[in-house]
Amino acid sequence: MENDIDNIPGGLEAEPWCIRERGLDPRRAFLHETLFTLGNGYIGMRGTPEEGHGPGGALKGTLEGTYLNGFHDTEAIHYPENAYGLARTNEFMLNVPNAKRITLEVDGALFTLDSGTVHAYERTLDFRTGVLARSVEWEAPSGQRLRIDSRRLVCLQRKHVAALEVAVTPLDFSGTVRLLADVDAAVSNMQAGDDPRVGSAITGPSLQLVGREVGETDVLVLQRTRNSGFLLATATDSVLDSPARLERLAGGHAFEVQARRGETIVLRKFVAYATSRDMDEGQVGAHARAEVARARADGFDALVAEQGAWLAGFWNEADVVIDGDDALQQGVRFNQFHLLQSVGRDGKTNIAAKGVTGEGYEGHYFWDTEIYVFPFFLFSRPEIARALLQYRYNGLPKARERARQMAHARGALYPWRTIAGEECSAYYPAGTAQYHINADVAYSIRLYWLATGDLDFIAQCGAEILLETARIWLGLGSWDRQGRFCINEVTGPDEYTALVNNNYYTNAMARMHMTFAADMIERLRAERPGEHARVAAAIGLEDAEIAAMRAAGAAMRLPYDEELGIHEQDDSFLSKKPWDFANTPQEHYPLLLHYHPLVIYRHQVCKQADVVLALMLLSNQFALDDKRRDFDYYERVTTHDSSLSSCIFSIVASEVGYRDKAYAYFMETARLDLDNTHANTQTGVHTAAMAGTWLGVAYGFGGMRLDEDGLRFAPALPDRWTGYRFQVHVRGALLEVAVGPGGAGYRLLKGAHLALAHRGRAFELNAGQPHIHMGDLA
Amino acid sequence: MENDIDNIPGGLEAEPWCIRERGLDPRRAFLHETLFTLGNGYIGMRGTPEEGHGPGGALKGTLEGTYLNGFHDTEAIHYPENAYGLARTNEFMLNVPNAKRITLEVDGALFTLDSGTVHAYERTLDFRTGVLARSVEWEAPSGQRLRIDSRRLVCLQRKHVAALEVAVTPLDFSGTVRLLADVDAAVSNMQAGDDPRVGSAITGPSLQLVGREVGETDVLVLQRTRNSGFLLATATDSVLDSPARLERLAGGHAFEVQARRGETIVLRKFVAYATSRDMDEGQVGAHARAEVARARADGFDALVAEQGAWLAGFWNEADVVIDGDDALQQGVRFNQFHLLQSVGRDGKTNIAAKGVTGEGYEGHYFWDTEIYVFPFFLFSRPEIARALLQYRYNGLPKARERARQMAHARGALYPWRTIAGEECSAYYPAGTAQYHINADVAYSIRLYWLATGDLDFIAQCGAEILLETARIWLGLGSWDRQGRFCINEVTGPDEYTALVNNNYYTNAMARMHMTFAADMIERLRAERPGEHARVAAAIGLEDAEIAAMRAAGAAMRLPYDEELGIHEQDDSFLSKKPWDFANTPQEHYPLLLHYHPLVIYRHQVCKQADVVLALMLLSNQFALDDKRRDFDYYERVTTHDSSLSSCIFSIVASEVGYRDKAYAYFMETARLDLDNTHANTQTGVHTAAMAGTWLGVAYGFGGMRLDEDGLRFAPALPDRWTGYRFQVHVRGALLEVAVGPGGAGYRLLKGAHLALAHRGRAFELNAGQPHIHMGDLA
Repeated sequence: MENDIDNIPGGLEAEPWCIRERGLDPRRAFLHETLFTLGNGYIGMRGTPEEGHGPGGALKGTLEGTYLNGFHDTEAIHYPENAYGLARTNEFMLNVPNAKRITLEVDGALFTLDSGTVHAYERTLDFRTGVLARSVEWEAPSGQRLRIDSRRLVCLQRKHVAALEVAVTPLDFSGTVRLLADVDAAVSNMQAGDDPRVGSAITGPSLQLVGREVGETDVLVLQRTRNSGFLLATATDSVLDSPARLERLAGGHAFEVQARRGETIVLRKFVAYATSRDMDEGQVGAHARAEVARARADGFDALVAEQGAWLAGFWNEADVVIDGDDALQQGVRFNQFHLLQSVGRDGKTNIAAKGVTGEGYEGHYFWDTEIYVFPFFLFSRPEIARALLQYRYNGLPKARERARQMAHARGALYPWRTIAGEECSAYYPAGTAQYHINADVAYSIRLYWLATGDLDFIAQCGAEILLETARIWLGLGSWDRQGRFCINEVTGPDEYTALVNNNYYTNAMARMHMTFAADMIERLRAERPGEHARVAAAIGLEDAEIAAMRAAGAAMRLPYDEELGIHEQDDSFLSKKPWDFANTPQEHYPLLLHYHPLVIYRHQVCKQADVVLALMLLSNQFALDDKRRDFDYYERVTTHDSSLSSCIFSIVASEVGYRDKAYAYFMETARLDLDNTHANTQTGVHTAAMAGTWLGVAYGFGGMRLDEDGLRFAPALPDRWTGYRFQVHVRGALLEVAVGPGGAGYRLLKGAHLALAHRGRAFELNAGQPHIHMGDLA
Repeated sequence: MENDIDNIPGGLEAEPWCIRERGLDPRRAFLHETLFTLGNGYIGMRGTPEEGHGPGGALKGTLEGTYLNGFHDTEAIHYPENAYGLARTNEFMLNVPNAKRITLEVDGALFTLDSGTVHAYERTLDFRTGVLARSVEWEAPSGQRLRIDSRRLVCLQRKHVAALEVAVTPLDFSGTVRLLADVDAAVSNMQAGDDPRVGSAITGPSLQLVGREVGETDVLVLQRTRNSGFLLATATDSVLDSPARLERLAGGHAFEVQARRGETIVLRKFVAYATSRDMDEGQVGAHARAEVARARADGFDALVAEQGAWLAGFWNEADVVIDGDDALQQGVRFNQFHLLQSVGRDGKTNIAAKGVTGEGYEGHYFWDTEIYVFPFFLFSRPEIARALLQYRYNGLPKARERARQMAHARGALYPWRTIAGEECSAYYPAGTAQYHINADVAYSIRLYWLATGDLDFIAQCGAEILLETARIWLGLGSWDRQGRFCINEVTGPDEYTALVNNNYYTNAMARMHMTFAADMIERLRAERPGEHARVAAAIGLEDAEIAAMRAAGAAMRLPYDEELGIHEQDDSFLSKKPWDFANTPQEHYPLLLHYHPLVIYRHQVCKQADVVLALMLLSNQFALDDKRRDFDYYERVTTHDSSLSSCIFSIVASEVGYRDKAYAYFMETARLDLDNTHANTQTGVHTAAMAGTWLGVAYGFGGMRLDEDGLRFAPALPDRWTGYRFQVHVRGALLEVAVGPGGAGYRLLKGAHLALAHRGRAFELNAGQPHIHMGDLA
């Protein structure tokens, strides 16, 4: 990461359906590569130019990255002082060959943006088409002037496929144009620096060449990962629309054209990646070739059309409209678009903290998925949410192993951070100690159940996850002398407070988890006795365990301070010294980069929402006055150094009636990456905050909640907006909620009827009969 | 460490003044190398044979080690997940060239203990002579039989010098005997395994050759450490007493003799080490040569005589006699002898956890010095104790730097483990978090003051240490809502409980520390105004700080559980789940090698004395009933997985009247290394436990305490003993305490008079007038 660009905001104009770069700012190149990333939940292709950068130019030091979600190598983790049970193996997402490379020479002069003269430059990523388009007018150092138009897409409907097109038009000359289309297989991951938010050390190149075939116009590169042993195929095929001298090179092909002034030459390149993580090893190369061939046969324009149609379907059911604030509108859609680009949909992959846009956090999946991202997909594209749960189900065997390493005789403990299920957290106080991951997964299952009523899923996968993970609480917790069930030595969501006893969030979520697990298994027993018997046998479930879960839930210690009238973050939080914010210079944030963990941990200071997150997730368990006091107290001690914080504060601020704060926190979330407010979007977008934006609209301004008390809304209209609309898939219906100055309207876009409530008043919504609540806003 | 020998006890017979090995047991070779180590507080030379072991023989896999106290290289510490302020640089004691090597060939057959036939073998390390002697009768594979007698010493009065002698006698043949005396400079440290008690990874050889000179019979090797940049000289000179053909080789000399049956050939080798850590770089080589030359001129027998005389002086004033238990007597003297061999006396070095006997804990100094080892030297050789304090004074500048890294604007924070003052603890929860190190140093100054009344030291060094280190408590601590001064997020002595609030030991010691610091600076102000002004100016001391220290001390939170009537180890200790000892198999100890830290930390389980240590150190602050209840409670939850534990439990058991327990714990301590009860003496002796043995006699059975209430004793006689005697240097006097079945006697061996107390009754002891308390034992 280049220090001098860390704090540059995106500088992009507010447009509702795209991001657009006019002119080229070298200071922003690294950041914009992330913002302009294309992805389809599997392939992620950073927005680097197809021709690359000149080696010594102003644009050097950026990150040429292409990633495949879940495709990883492993490295042993070494600790300077070892201890039993520490995570032993890191899994990290690999930078794979750069197959999009197309370089251009004009009469021997190599085109790069940092050579010659760029007379015009514009680049657009359109959320409706899913196409990254660039138009450049360039004058070579030797004087030739030409226009280069390119388009690129990563196919949302074709997991393995990407394609691009480069059109070159000589403007004031005729001469030799040489286009080189190849595969750069000599790639490697970034070197990790000292920033714990990037990654760990990698000891050597991960991809080892197995074979390379350069055919008539096609290329196939086969590589194997060094430690994880996966086979990777990178296939391309390149098609020029003009007569050319074709030269076959070691890594690709050169097309040499005698170009004429004003006549456009078009090169199209079709790309596919496949790996043995997805299919039998023997099929990998053939599959990549076949996908390239199919794409080529369909043609570039067909791919563009297909992409647009698919996205139209998405926006049709997921679009959030904000009237009166273009910058926010852009941020909201940008975030939704990137979530869609980042999320794995195959049940074997998930959504990484940085999606497939960069190497921050090494492509790891965290609780971010369940608590932040999951609701967005659940209510926008439920089948994707289902796939995310499937991923966790597939992770149960590894989670059982991990539980044994952590001395739990029964149950399953999910890893804090992982790709393929190994615990990859090399700093356990802010990693493995976050046992709440188990409850977070359970929470997402509960939300899925509430939103879909899908008992098949509960029977097939959900109950097993719920019970295996709930067992951990019984082993972890203990009864104190006052007869309370305590959970000691854990870390809650707030990573500025570690290894505490009775973290409020953890305990409250564990209570929800155990109670819900018990409810679900008893429902199965009543409604699906056969399925119940299968699940109980599979995990050796005893009735006494269910009783123990209910008893522990009922007696759970939930710290509350009578004097302050607030929920205490943990047993000792309020006994600690308040952080001296007045004497903390601005440049000492984020604190984690400027203070030893011991210094941070011994103070009352929070990185992020913790109790406040519980207020939102377990909304119906709290009185409004308590929520307000909690919000007031924790807001004073929270730095929001985590990108997971502002959206939650925005939602709870909405609920307790702090309209200005709700708006301000929402702004921080909605444009976090566009404005690079955390100064590290260069290494990837923040998917949790992106999803938090949707939550900020629906849960925050819309006041939406879904729990045992049903689906309800309590909409407010921020002062600067003239209106907003969002959609919710729930119980098979598609609900539109529209809020304007006059009130709120509800209508069913799909489905026959739906029970819900507006500001505490229940009503039934039927197809074709919208409900409008005039003037009745929160 | 070879697993198959981990659990082998020493197997040595109980003799009062030596350890003796009869016959050779390959399983014990690695362990015995440690036990037979010679040292003088600077050089440490493991008890490997001068001829080495055969490369593939039964004795391979041991550790050929020579160390110089404080002589170290450094390596950067890399963390798989980094954080601000973590220790950045490790310092580790280096294995230096093996200068004692003398190999022997008989008619071309190389002598090693694992070849040919060993007909007789005996080795002795005598605590009175300080000489390691070995006698071997060996038959070569080709049939020649000979006796090889060797003696070796590391000169206690010559910091840089060691010497050895090898005498070879052909028993049944005449033939060619070739003795090769050289310096093996191709040495390196052990490879660290996964055991956190050994060491961290070292990336490459540390000693790089600068030059080598092989003279007529002398060798000089100059090397430089890779990162720390120290120059090391290793010098030898070898003298044969018989005519020989002398051959000069690359690394030394070969002496070839036509030996005759029954006639003895003697080779003597004089060795010196010097480094630029001790002197100007330009002198290093010359000094080593000069010391070798002086030793050679004096002669081997003169060195032996000098060593014996010096040791006679030591034993005369420090010997502890135990009548009726030879095994204990041996253990006690073995431990005293090794402490003397291990302790640095130059103010630049200290005493490592493993002395200079091995690479466990990398030659680091810990709090073990102040709390365990210091009292032994204070009461046996006060000038050595003074040098240990000087070491800490010299470390103040680094401790100030470390305090700033830890966000303390004022004061000095000593490193948890170090050689030259850098914090080398790479796992902060059981390292840097042990802030009690500051109070431990203060405690040793207080004890020194109480034992010597040396106000000069307080003025010159002590006050500055006391106040700079006490300032940390003011910055670290905070006031809770009940008006108590709290110290949060620290780790106490018990490393099975980490990052807690208000650790009893830490808070009680901090109170002592702040109060004593305030007392001493006010005494200086009253008695030495000039010195007071100098100290106050040097550290910018303000009167308000003294007042703040007294206020914090007075309001210190000291957890006490009214229900159980015990001092709580920290705010949450008693709320945790008791460890399930009944279901912990024996092979799961020590727990740290079988359970994740989170599992250990969330349970009520102690590695070692914590509250119980406070009971001993701050003895006059506790009622006897409280002590007994504390002992009872904490004994049940303590594993003694640390070697620092048993001696303290023995002492407090004595005090509360548990005679059998006192004896049993004492046995565990006194023969910990001889019996290898911690299964890791191979990598070095346990100096703290060794000193704990002396404490067990004087503080435990002798009931000695020295605090503001004066010097006092409350002797008891263990059932198996017929009597015991120990000596105490105090206030310029040398006191002998003798305990027998009939009672206890006190007499002054030096000094005119001394005030003390026997079982609560004060009396004055005068020269020539012993006091005997008949029948009045505890």
